[in-house]
Amino acid sequence: MGIGSLGEFGFIDMIRSKIGPLPEGIMGIGDDCAVIPISSREDLIVTTDLLVEDVHFLRGDISAWRLGWKSVAVNISDIAAMGGKPLGTFLSIALPKDVEPDWAEEFTRGYMDISRKFDTPLLGGDTTSSKKAIAINVAVLGTVPSGKAKLRSAAVPGDLVCCTGTLGDSGAGLEVILKGYSRSSVEEFLLSRHYEPVPRVSEGLELVKMPGVHAMMDISDGIGSDLVHILRASGVAASIALDKLPLSSQLVDFCGRYGLSPEKFAISSGEDYELLFTVSPSCRADIEGFATVIGEIREGEPGIEYLKNGKPCGQEFKGYVHF
Amino acid sequence: MGIGSLGEFGFIDMIRSKIGPLPEGIMGIGDDCAVIPISSREDLIVTTDLLVEDVHFLRGDISAWRLGWKSVAVNISDIAAMGGKPLGTFLSIALPKDVEPDWAEEFTRGYMDISRKFDTPLLGGDTTSSKKAIAINVAVLGTVPSGKAKLRSAAVPGDLVCCTGTLGDSGAGLEVILKGYSRSSVEEFLLSRHYEPVPRVSEGLELVKMPGVHAMMDISDGIGSDLVHILRASGVAASIALDKLPLSSQLVDFCGRYGLSPEKFAISSGEDYELLFTVSPSCRADIEGFATVIGEIREGEPGIEYLKNGKPCGQEFKGYVHF
Repeated sequence: MGIGSLGEFGFIDMIRSKIGPLPEGIMGIGDDCAVIPISSREDLIVTTDLLVEDVHFLRGDISAWRLGWKSVAVNISDIAAMGGKPLGTFLSIALPKDVEPDWAEEFTRGYMDISRKFDTPLLGGDTTSSKKAIAINVAVLGTVPSGKAKLRSAAVPGDLVCCTGTLGDSGAGLEVILKGYSRSSVEEFLLSRHYEPVPRVSEGLELVKMPGVHAMMDISDGIGSDLVHILRASGVAASIALDKLPLSSQLVDFCGRYGLSPEKFAISSGEDYELLFTVSPSCRADIEGFATVIGEIREGEPGIEYLKNGKPCGQEFKGYVHF
Repeated sequence: MGIGSLGEFGFIDMIRSKIGPLPEGIMGIGDDCAVIPISSREDLIVTTDLLVEDVHFLRGDISAWRLGWKSVAVNISDIAAMGGKPLGTFLSIALPKDVEPDWAEEFTRGYMDISRKFDTPLLGGDTTSSKKAIAINVAVLGTVPSGKAKLRSAAVPGDLVCCTGTLGDSGAGLEVILKGYSRSSVEEFLLSRHYEPVPRVSEGLELVKMPGVHAMMDISDGIGSDLVHILRASGVAASIALDKLPLSSQLVDFCGRYGLSPEKFAISSGEDYELLFTVSPSCRADIEGFATVIGEIREGEPGIEYLKNGKPCGQEFKGYVHF
């Protein structure tokens, strides 16, 4: 019996059970970022993500530039998910001896390109060797106005469930890779959504100013899995309208050609890095410019009911599982 | 030609060359921690370290409890090296499926034991799987009084070179492991120094209050290597008195029995996690309770001259090399 039997969340639960009460005002494990008050004006928010070769990426498939970009993007997305502004990053990287200096340079170039785009300098880190697999850990610090971080636990019955952008593109891009589909401009779009996610920082900075926006997180494992985190943290249920999901024309085209379900990609596939949030219905107009209403928060046991044409359709979806 | 040809410091130099100017007041790569002003009273300091199985540790040789302890200790030591107070930690861990839940629980226990000892709660992180090797990244946040962090670049000619504790014990402990020496209480002491380092937080908090203490860092690669970082950052030279090195009676005993050089362990072996600092000679009395004077800063090209009985002895030592 290995750690696989414990599972990712089992391991996290075991760790959490051993942490005592935290100092006043600090929020630790359980949201996209930890929140640490640092002054009367601002809270510090911190997130970290570990990417391991052959688990999170295949060296032969993702370019070093894209890996550098993505390793920062997924963390900045967690900062955006709190409504925060990224401040700086820390890179730890273990490289096997067979990695070429050119690879390291391209990785660094991708890392720096996204760092510049989001004005988030690399401030420190650690470099070391490894026997076999590349391992990359990025930690990002950010700030939010004091007490204003958007948490997973703030959804209330009656809230609208919303998301930015379109869903499922990244998962379809992964399908293109795994199945070896030929690559037209449609597939290239899906691949770029998979390889070069753009975290929703400016949207997060808008949303953090709106008191009517309640719970928020980023979508890394598909809304079928991620929305449940909000529901559990808030003690509520939700309905999702399958016919309201924001789908790109490219995803619809790709799925049409291969007989695949775009809804399944939108709900069950990972790495969209869009924002998922709940908002009071009275604020609907404020968010309509950059987000789509896809459902509603209800009283009830945490769980999602899927609707078509406003009626329960009996469909169920699975989220992405890490272990 | 792999990354080995670039070397650890070559890779870091390449990364540094691509970082633009940092925002006012922030100090990035180049010291034990990054320094980020957060209020008029305090600066935030941040450090991170990545440990990879079969590079930094062998799963069969170090207990899970000790690995949990050590992975936090080496980072808190970097906080101590700036004169800082640790505030919280972030753990990223990748575990292969063959790791038993018991191992994960013992690792967590060691991690929590040192976290409690230094009042530094675990605030977040990431857990994932890996194909083969365990990878552990720990990031630690701490604070120092504004503008008071002790930097590597502050040594001036005339300063005394000092260190806390005794040197070389951890390296001798590693030798016990690598050579399979039988283990009496002497070897067990050396092994505990290797496996369970105790970062010098309280000493660092004393030293940060003393304006006469100039440069400071922690000793992770042996003073033969680490002192050179201070010398380069400060643009000075140093002499080290081999007959003044603080050696434990256990190290002397062990080396005597096997015909080994205790000075070589004290200077060239890694992972002592003592503090190395320079201090104005007028403040000698302030530090004598908990540190030993081992040399002197001089004008000149960065480099160390080793003395015996006050005279150059022509000896040279190599530091620990990571790649």
